[in-house]
Amino acid sequence: MNAEILCVGTELLIGQVVNTNATYLAQELAALGIDLYWVSTVGDNYGRLDEALRQATSRADLVLVTGGLGPTADDITVEAVGRVMGEALAERPEERDRIVRYFERLNRPMATSNLKMALFPPSAELIPNPTGSASGLAAKVGRATVMTFPGVPFEMKAMWEGWARPRLAALGGGTIRSALLKYAGIGEAQLAEQVARYLEGANPSVAPYASSGEVHLRVTAKAETEEEAEAMLAPVIAELTAIQPYYFGRDEQTLPSVVGDLLLERQATLATAESCTGGLVASRITDVAGSSNYFLGGLVTYAGIAKTGLLGIPDDLLVGGAVSQAVAERLAEGARARLGTTWGVGITGFAGGGAGVPDDDVGLVWGAVAGPDGVTAESWRYGGRVPREMIKFRATQSLLDLLRRRLIKSGR
Amino acid sequence: MNAEILCVGTELLIGQVVNTNATYLAQELAALGIDLYWVSTVGDNYGRLDEALRQATSRADLVLVTGGLGPTADDITVEAVGRVMGEALAERPEERDRIVRYFERLNRPMATSNLKMALFPPSAELIPNPTGSASGLAAKVGRATVMTFPGVPFEMKAMWEGWARPRLAALGGGTIRSALLKYAGIGEAQLAEQVARYLEGANPSVAPYASSGEVHLRVTAKAETEEEAEAMLAPVIAELTAIQPYYFGRDEQTLPSVVGDLLLERQATLATAESCTGGLVASRITDVAGSSNYFLGGLVTYAGIAKTGLLGIPDDLLVGGAVSQAVAERLAEGARARLGTTWGVGITGFAGGGAGVPDDDVGLVWGAVAGPDGVTAESWRYGGRVPREMIKFRATQSLLDLLRRRLIKSGR
Repeated sequence: MNAEILCVGTELLIGQVVNTNATYLAQELAALGIDLYWVSTVGDNYGRLDEALRQATSRADLVLVTGGLGPTADDITVEAVGRVMGEALAERPEERDRIVRYFERLNRPMATSNLKMALFPPSAELIPNPTGSASGLAAKVGRATVMTFPGVPFEMKAMWEGWARPRLAALGGGTIRSALLKYAGIGEAQLAEQVARYLEGANPSVAPYASSGEVHLRVTAKAETEEEAEAMLAPVIAELTAIQPYYFGRDEQTLPSVVGDLLLERQATLATAESCTGGLVASRITDVAGSSNYFLGGLVTYAGIAKTGLLGIPDDLLVGGAVSQAVAERLAEGARARLGTTWGVGITGFAGGGAGVPDDDVGLVWGAVAGPDGVTAESWRYGGRVPREMIKFRATQSLLDLLRRRLIKSGR
Repeated sequence: MNAEILCVGTELLIGQVVNTNATYLAQELAALGIDLYWVSTVGDNYGRLDEALRQATSRADLVLVTGGLGPTADDITVEAVGRVMGEALAERPEERDRIVRYFERLNRPMATSNLKMALFPPSAELIPNPTGSASGLAAKVGRATVMTFPGVPFEMKAMWEGWARPRLAALGGGTIRSALLKYAGIGEAQLAEQVARYLEGANPSVAPYASSGEVHLRVTAKAETEEEAEAMLAPVIAELTAIQPYYFGRDEQTLPSVVGDLLLERQATLATAESCTGGLVASRITDVAGSSNYFLGGLVTYAGIAKTGLLGIPDDLLVGGAVSQAVAERLAEGARARLGTTWGVGITGFAGGGAGVPDDDVGLVWGAVAGPDGVTAESWRYGGRVPREMIKFRATQSLLDLLRRRLIKSGR
């Protein structure tokens, strides 16, 4: 079975609203094992909506339409579906009653235009809307099934979960299971080359995606049952997670959560001292619930005076420039000493936009990790004219990955 | 002129990524006065991508394609454009050199697959990518112009702003001018009520949008010339920016940038001491280029031991709970004293996910601002079961807005 999503609404075409409905339905279809081949968006325009509906129903088995079910003049989805079905709309008395009662319950006057929401093609089945005023419809158009949902995300979700998903799940047709494997310290192309023989496979399939400062491999298997799909995934996942030291976690795991788990296992604690990242390393670490069990605190030593005043880094070390291996190491050691933690990390670099920094130096970052067995430093370079926030974020990725590798190696 | 957006990438069809590129380009096209009629998404699939390109180029004047420009086997956009143009791809030696240098500069080994990014249809013009490895192309296909951009949002934006937008703007044909006015400390419905009479207008139009911890009003005017459109906007903007103390900035301005401007004007400096936000206040302040002119540094006093050790907050103040007006004030005063700045801010609260915090307390945050004329504190509550990161972000918004109001009032 293959599906197509058709989103209706001029607000999407002027960029007023981000189309999260399409993302949600795409995830849901993937989980049901239904292939999604197209997502289209059109405005509240008769000609183009008709064209989009005819095209979608001619090439897909299932067409999910969102938006355009409301009471106003620009809500034209039901009319368009009727036209494509070749049916004139007729009022459903029970829907008319429901709409009248809906407004009575809200204690709001009902504009008569709302009764438009009681009109449906006669052969359509209704999809109840437990949280809003407009019901959806499910109807056959040629070989395709069309289902309509409101554009309001929580109404759409309630109708999908309450009505559509159970019916589609019952149709069977197998299932899809997938895992998202995450890698740091390696480029997309380099990883793709290393796993080239897996990228050819159709089932399980393996596809690489570059993310900011990490690379992901999505491994997907289709099978009749969940158990079968998991059994197909297992050996591939075992081989792909053995790509060390780059593989760091899967699915919901992040570099900060993985570092946190390693610290917890070792009953170790952590402190940070940051210059160029301005607190973002500490902030990302504390995005993890329970981080107070291992993260004690940090210092943001942005100005030279803060490096000297808070950590006693000598002026003569800063005169040669605050971006150096020596300064990164002093930051890491200083954070560790100042907060009395097992581990300390330090980071300094040129995030760009400051005065007096040569263009070529922007994107150069030094990071260091200090621990029970000494201090290690690395430098990284983020290319081109990358925005400040991006350099900051990538620098936190590199530093967290350095800490992760160091924790694994040290065992303490 | 009418446009169509075509997004390429299987990650979009399995819902792994929200399509923010389409929203951005839709806004940009609206601002240029170019009608957008269709947005389509297809996967990394030869047949369907060709079909989508043929369809788009047959019905639109301008086709903007995002995604599929990378080095891996599933990056097939340039090939597909070549097929639809009827041109075989050929290597551009200058692009090959640029890619080789790009990796040299990053100090990373270059997988040979990256050289695929130097292949283009011979008649295409290149769109330079200042921040990444894959250039885009602009080419004629029948009556349509096709432009390709990477799927990585900041690369796409840099190429759009640096190359495509100025060229499209020069084509003319009436214009749309708009301003985005930003408000903090007021809810969307409350602001909408206050500006109700403007929301009725069609030209200029005013539309409210809720963002995280702030509310935006988009004011838009259509006219023959830029001057005419600006003249229509001016009186409306004058009235809407007079809504004080809520209005804080417009367009690219952010709470951190506005606070930075106020500090610069006053030749004042700032330090931070953060508990629940874990460094995010400092990080957001340092997202602003030039922030080193007023931000000296900060402390992330996450554990009690850090509050005592770094700022000397007495234990007995923490015994009653670290989330209180007194602790927020001591953090603000401590940051100011420790770094010798004009202003200091402090923040402490329950971000959720920690052990031993009653559910009812999650989302309670105290913030304080200490300055030459004393210390002020406020408390905020972020309702419902909001995720940790959201509570952290909203808390930074509230604190920065408190600092903004205090700076305006104090003048120092």
